[in-house]
Amino acid sequence: MVQSASASSAVIARVDRGPITESIHRGHIAVVNNEGRLLHSLGDPQAVTFARSTAKLIQALPVLESGAASDFGLSDQEIALICASHNGEPAHVQTARSLLAKAGADPGDLQCGAHFPFHRPTAKRMKEEGEAPTPLHNNCSGKHAGMLTLAAKLGQSADNYMSPDHPVQREMLLAVADMAGLAPEDIPLGTDGCGVPVFGLAIDRLALAYARLGKPYGLPAARTEACGRIIGAIRREPAYLAGEDRFDTQLIEATGGRIIGKMGAEGLFALTVPEESLGLVLKIEDGAQRALYCAVLEALNQLGLLRPSELKALAAFREPKVTNWRGTEVGVIRPDFRLS
Amino acid sequence: MVQSASASSAVIARVDRGPITESIHRGHIAVVNNEGRLLHSLGDPQAVTFARSTAKLIQALPVLESGAASDFGLSDQEIALICASHNGEPAHVQTARSLLAKAGADPGDLQCGAHFPFHRPTAKRMKEEGEAPTPLHNNCSGKHAGMLTLAAKLGQSADNYMSPDHPVQREMLLAVADMAGLAPEDIPLGTDGCGVPVFGLAIDRLALAYARLGKPYGLPAARTEACGRIIGAIRREPAYLAGEDRFDTQLIEATGGRIIGKMGAEGLFALTVPEESLGLVLKIEDGAQRALYCAVLEALNQLGLLRPSELKALAAFREPKVTNWRGTEVGVIRPDFRLS
Repeated sequence: MVQSASASSAVIARVDRGPITESIHRGHIAVVNNEGRLLHSLGDPQAVTFARSTAKLIQALPVLESGAASDFGLSDQEIALICASHNGEPAHVQTARSLLAKAGADPGDLQCGAHFPFHRPTAKRMKEEGEAPTPLHNNCSGKHAGMLTLAAKLGQSADNYMSPDHPVQREMLLAVADMAGLAPEDIPLGTDGCGVPVFGLAIDRLALAYARLGKPYGLPAARTEACGRIIGAIRREPAYLAGEDRFDTQLIEATGGRIIGKMGAEGLFALTVPEESLGLVLKIEDGAQRALYCAVLEALNQLGLLRPSELKALAAFREPKVTNWRGTEVGVIRPDFRLS
Repeated sequence: MVQSASASSAVIARVDRGPITESIHRGHIAVVNNEGRLLHSLGDPQAVTFARSTAKLIQALPVLESGAASDFGLSDQEIALICASHNGEPAHVQTARSLLAKAGADPGDLQCGAHFPFHRPTAKRMKEEGEAPTPLHNNCSGKHAGMLTLAAKLGQSADNYMSPDHPVQREMLLAVADMAGLAPEDIPLGTDGCGVPVFGLAIDRLALAYARLGKPYGLPAARTEACGRIIGAIRREPAYLAGEDRFDTQLIEATGGRIIGKMGAEGLFALTVPEESLGLVLKIEDGAQRALYCAVLEALNQLGLLRPSELKALAAFREPKVTNWRGTEVGVIRPDFRLS
């Protein structure tokens, strides 16, 4: 069992209720440039965890490098959706459908399972109308559609595309390993919430992958081009990476695409600041999402990467309120750390 | 700001996915006898947090000591419900209603706010039938009804019963302080999810309160009697402390009432083992509930307080599974600590 270096986690945020800090979230941060140099850290920058959905932007690389994206004429929206943990808003579902159609695949080919949309108004409407969720609503349907797109381009079967031995999964593992400067055999695999392999690696390696994604360095021409296409697509269509009420989307919108970031399950966030040639990864040790976005903003603020107007636009995420059943504020979550 | 002694928290449980520990929950444990002697601990047994719903059993004391319970003829079910974070099952709602009626109060007097029942089948049915939740469904409705009962007995107004200055809240603060061996002014107050004051204290003090509740020591006769009535009512009616699928209820049922335990929000659990004269409190530092019950069972097992048949009956809580959207098991939560 590979274990996170738990002894060295640091306090990230405090959950205050009245006069007491009631709960504490710890974690790890790594800030790395595109040559792999550690610039700043908190806790253990080599803490190992699963990349979860932060890997999606890297997993999209072989879809583009294979020529599938150009052959099938994928749009920016579709490329952003391949990288997304989307909200299941109508536009997301429609885009997943169009992506599948271009690849000659069918919604029935998706093996991600179904869940009600993250987007509460959409989920509420569906429940009221008795509409059951489909795999298209699954927040990972874009990624799975991207996998089916790559399978189609490679002339491979769609039946077992989730198997770690399937060429699609092998290509994606190779891309993650290469971008992180690791050998594929150094990346332990687990199973994601949507059934496909997830990649275990140290957060400083994941930060390197993001730094290089945003500002390619020492990469072949085809990969450099694919990185640019992915960043460009997300920058132009941030609503397709997450959704209207989501931090990922609003961070990109607020910064005019200067920062591109992606959340992952179990309290993970990875981002790239292309013009600074850097990647940042933050892992909440206990996996809680409630402390994640405020901590990311605090780290970016400490690094001088956010302008006052941008911080203001993202104010709703800075100090999340704790409310009671009647909606009255009874507490607040506050970041509490200092990056080295 | 009073802060938990965060530096000294210890690993409580690991969230494993495939070959990696993906997340870690830390916390604190205190095991104390009814004379206040610390018998075992993990992390910082003096970590300060809010007692949240674990205080309910102590808050029930003045309801009994005032004579309200006997004057109004409260049943075991009603007394257990005063101590409950109940499921909002039909029997719970009916009991809250009968409790209010006995005190001459009305459901409209409840100021706890409304939320859909914790009990999923009940919540699902209500949503399907378009039935809105009422304050009676609030998991704290029994506690609030108990407060109104005490207000009625004291001849006090029901209007502002949630105010820290109301005689009901003062009585309850005094009971918590006294049982914990503290002065009331040493207990910082916050606001609970249901609007009333919550009590800040070190977990070893809360454990002392539970030890004395289960096996009164050095208490006046009226309090000793009230403790016995509360423990007896919960022992006879454990389904009214939580509900059919809940750990609190099943722990009491599985042990034939030998162990009486109560969860609280933000990853807290307090229990008493009357025949051993001890109290145990476990706080998950980050507030997560997913690691709580397995950790409580592990602690009880290490203390030799559970028989094999009881552990077997509670197996569903011992190593909670992590599943994906399709319901396949992809990980497990495992306690990982050794009590001193």
